[in-house]
Amino acid sequence: MIGRLNHVAIAVPDLEAAAAQYRGTLGADVGAPQDEPGHGVTVVFITLPNTKIELLYPLGENSPIAGFLEKNPSGGIHHICYEVDDILAARDRLKAEGARVLGTGEPKIGAHGKPVLFLHPKDFNGCLVELEQV
Amino acid sequence: MIGRLNHVAIAVPDLEAAAAQYRGTLGADVGAPQDEPGHGVTVVFITLPNTKIELLYPLGENSPIAGFLEKNPSGGIHHICYEVDDILAARDRLKAEGARVLGTGEPKIGAHGKPVLFLHPKDFNGCLVELEQV
Repeated sequence: MIGRLNHVAIAVPDLEAAAAQYRGTLGADVGAPQDEPGHGVTVVFITLPNTKIELLYPLGENSPIAGFLEKNPSGGIHHICYEVDDILAARDRLKAEGARVLGTGEPKIGAHGKPVLFLHPKDFNGCLVELEQV
Repeated sequence: MIGRLNHVAIAVPDLEAAAAQYRGTLGADVGAPQDEPGHGVTVVFITLPNTKIELLYPLGENSPIAGFLEKNPSGGIHHICYEVDDILAARDRLKAEGARVLGTGEPKIGAHGKPVLFLHPKDFNGCLVELEQV
């Protein structure tokens, strides 16, 4: 069911410093910061040859990563995103197997303009898993 | 400098259950468990179309992931691994930029038979970063 690893998302306490480190020290292809008000984050995309890293920084109040950064002041890996062909079929299969889908259970439009869902970390080895329909 | 994302490593409290979940519920291509006594882990490789997930479970005493699982009983993302062409050149560049290399600073042979190094999470947004020469 799952396809490619679409991205790994890393919450960072200093977006400018993290982007500079990936661009300079690690020599990666790092984009410009993009505000995603609907998701409460500013994102920097890092394009690797086979997948992406997303650096996440809180935007506005009630950002979903503010609490994560409070608990992890140095930052940390926030979630991983797997691609699926059909997000509703994936959701229904997961729910039938007992996995919990976060929020309303209806897909939202994610940072790439595609439908996404998040799965409960307790059901997936402590990892917050995003599914994105591609 | 960094190339492909070689893998994402997830420490899991129940290797059999996690492998069954990725194989069954998530429909992924999941290998057989492999003991890596030199690294203190049993590993299950999950082959995605563009990268790998590695499920890690402690093997023997003094496993490097035993403490992580004590702190994170549900499991969690343990590290991410970037590929580099020349691990000694990468190490020297990172050290010159002030990043800390874990252990002796000399590469060890990793689970794939290639030289690897680990970088200090505090220097990389709270993420344990492995570099693997390919």
